[in-house]
Amino acid sequence: MTPEQFRRHAHELVDWMADYLRDVGDYPVVPDVQPGRIRASLPPGPPRDGEPFDRIAADFRELIVPGMTHWNHPGWFGYFPANHSPPSILAEMLTATLGAQCMSWQTSPAATELEQVMMEWLRGMLGLPAEFTGVIQDTASTATLVALLTARDRAGAEPGRLTVYASAEAHSSIPKGARLAGFAPEHLRLVPVDETFAMDSSALGALMASDVALGLVPACVVATVGTTSSTAVDPLAEIGAVCRRHGAWLHVDAAYAGAAAILPERRALFDGVELADSFVFNPHKWLLTNFDCSAYFVRDVPALLRTFSAAPAYLRTAHDPEVSNFRDWGIQLGRRFRALKLWFVIRSYGVEGLRAMLRRHIVLAEEFRSWVDAEPGFVVPAPSPFGLVCLRHEPPALAGDGAATDEWNRALLARVNASGQVFLTHTQLDGRYTIRMAIGQWATEREQVARAWERIRHSAG
Amino acid sequence: MTPEQFRRHAHELVDWMADYLRDVGDYPVVPDVQPGRIRASLPPGPPRDGEPFDRIAADFRELIVPGMTHWNHPGWFGYFPANHSPPSILAEMLTATLGAQCMSWQTSPAATELEQVMMEWLRGMLGLPAEFTGVIQDTASTATLVALLTARDRAGAEPGRLTVYASAEAHSSIPKGARLAGFAPEHLRLVPVDETFAMDSSALGALMASDVALGLVPACVVATVGTTSSTAVDPLAEIGAVCRRHGAWLHVDAAYAGAAAILPERRALFDGVELADSFVFNPHKWLLTNFDCSAYFVRDVPALLRTFSAAPAYLRTAHDPEVSNFRDWGIQLGRRFRALKLWFVIRSYGVEGLRAMLRRHIVLAEEFRSWVDAEPGFVVPAPSPFGLVCLRHEPPALAGDGAATDEWNRALLARVNASGQVFLTHTQLDGRYTIRMAIGQWATEREQVARAWERIRHSAG
Repeated sequence: MTPEQFRRHAHELVDWMADYLRDVGDYPVVPDVQPGRIRASLPPGPPRDGEPFDRIAADFRELIVPGMTHWNHPGWFGYFPANHSPPSILAEMLTATLGAQCMSWQTSPAATELEQVMMEWLRGMLGLPAEFTGVIQDTASTATLVALLTARDRAGAEPGRLTVYASAEAHSSIPKGARLAGFAPEHLRLVPVDETFAMDSSALGALMASDVALGLVPACVVATVGTTSSTAVDPLAEIGAVCRRHGAWLHVDAAYAGAAAILPERRALFDGVELADSFVFNPHKWLLTNFDCSAYFVRDVPALLRTFSAAPAYLRTAHDPEVSNFRDWGIQLGRRFRALKLWFVIRSYGVEGLRAMLRRHIVLAEEFRSWVDAEPGFVVPAPSPFGLVCLRHEPPALAGDGAATDEWNRALLARVNASGQVFLTHTQLDGRYTIRMAIGQWATEREQVARAWERIRHSAG
Repeated sequence: MTPEQFRRHAHELVDWMADYLRDVGDYPVVPDVQPGRIRASLPPGPPRDGEPFDRIAADFRELIVPGMTHWNHPGWFGYFPANHSPPSILAEMLTATLGAQCMSWQTSPAATELEQVMMEWLRGMLGLPAEFTGVIQDTASTATLVALLTARDRAGAEPGRLTVYASAEAHSSIPKGARLAGFAPEHLRLVPVDETFAMDSSALGALMASDVALGLVPACVVATVGTTSSTAVDPLAEIGAVCRRHGAWLHVDAAYAGAAAILPERRALFDGVELADSFVFNPHKWLLTNFDCSAYFVRDVPALLRTFSAAPAYLRTAHDPEVSNFRDWGIQLGRRFRALKLWFVIRSYGVEGLRAMLRRHIVLAEEFRSWVDAEPGFVVPAPSPFGLVCLRHEPPALAGDGAATDEWNRALLARVNASGQVFLTHTQLDGRYTIRMAIGQWATEREQVARAWERIRHSAG
């Protein structure tokens, strides 16, 4: 395909892309397909000779798009949002065209320096400590693993004596990361939570003291601001004090909720972050930036580099002593030019534009919650400080029968989602099946939130 | 930015993108910038209010592009190639527009099933065993870490007793991965290489037998097809036999050279791959697919899932028993829709089109090598079975003075690269500074190869 053929096809695709952004709300959020059907529609082997692009593009529209779940549908209320935005997509087009490999300063000076500047912008926007230095990781799972590995190596004791702490509500990437990092499974302490599903810092202190008394070495605590199940907020200041007492690394997982730190009125939920050793949040969730883009901030850069740097002859450059080579700041050697989309997004919307979007979502969540609170038979089992509202329907006829109530809510959620106009997901809170309504897709308006509530109420009736 | 504003800006960018693909050869391959200059040209903080996109696009062209290293320049001979291609860029545009999160089948059915089909296409194209199942990882570094972690967990002995083996020429991601996976540093065996820089399988057998005699447990051998320094080929069949004898996991790192397995005439270099437990190669290197896209094949899928699966309530779906949820096949939970670009690339070029490109590069490398071989004072210290040719200039005046010869070649390379028209990098072979000429950028023609050789010869004169 020549550059001129590319030009023609790309212009055609741009029109499809703009139409898609305009019309995505007309698709069913989740497709009605059975496992294996799309696979069966594709040839089992590759073509011998090249095919015309028009045929490939037609197959994309006819075979692939109808089988996609539309994460950027305005009726998206599942999991957490995975926002893109028009300026972010524009940046991704350029990133793909440059095709640069941003492993070292020399292999992409502008990408490295723009990443440094964007991480500084974000650090300031979130009010994170000036001692933090940022680097882009692909996902929060990876960033948390990076923190656990750094903490493991920094602890300076044999791995069999190290302990790790997180609340029972922490994300699955924390037990998974601890396992991958080689911590003994029996040394991962799941700290109990209080009635708001936040970590009980006294319980943490007691566990840690008892571990130390046994000769174990507390290596890392992972605290969460905005847990996945209910957006609970672990008390960072109290947890940080416990960590300081015993020399444990404090990693803060704010994958979803970290974006809200740009709101002065939500900043108090992050009090104590100045005691953290590392912090991660995902601009690719609630800050209009295409996946993948996870912002990882760390205090002790030399510790990070001790764990992750590798400088074989073929990677050394003349500039190494005076630059940051981000290949040494994480697991991967190769890196995409991900700072560009952050630059396009932050400049296109400005800090006030991003704040306005977050506030709009939070107000919608508060309004939704008020509707649920006012409706007999519905329960909201957790605080909702951000864009997520958890709910359960508890019909009087099933009172006292937890299993039947769980089954009822599972069926209720299936009925709501079957409409194809909205999509919500579930979790467990206190061992009970709970419906999650996550408001945060960039194009979501009051109309879709009201429609979701109507469907829930109607399906429960 | 509305969809209609997006449409206008995207059309404008497409014209820039097509121009860039046409004109990239006119840029200096590596920019002439000093560290910190780009950073200093950017504001230290974010704008309060949004800015017009035209201004952002202008800054991209004026501040960022002049500071980029152009990996897709036809004069690119550094590291290994990091190819994109027009069809791959078109796919990335669509991937960014869908913005789908492909962690589970339900969260993107078409993406999951297309990934399965693409991995089957690639498995067949490379002639890999039918028992291998493929999954896309981001990079070979990550894939190798995945293999090491799976091997560690499958070995079933305490971590302190496990050993890992790789040749002294293995990529830096192997010692780094072994360290991250928690293998004891003193239990990573760097196996000696023969005169072709390939692993000495007898030495491997002797090391492993002696470790077993000491009560240690061989967990994993990483063999390389196409090492980074010189594209040496470890003897897979002999290494596989040693692994089978002692129950060690055999991981094959073919990050760069794996693409060449689609050539029947190069297939013999992969003999013995049928004994491997896992295999990785990067379509994002030499198969026209934008970074990131690393194809990881594994024999024992249940072992992989035992190490990487995590299924908290909020991630469970009704389809889990009957589908593959790729979130359980690696480190990251979130995943981009990366199969789409493979589909676009393989269909656009066809298997024969891809073979033709690889053969063109290999023929150019053979021709380049013949020029170097014929030139007095130049040495080619390693075989060149793929697209990489290593070379050194050894002026008679410096004969016997290794350090001075190293310095001479370092200066020679700097003079060659200073032209801005070509870019080569270096390595160490046998402890000696060695220039690497990696031919594999998709637009590279004989003209650029000849120009590079002219510059080298002229700069050495």
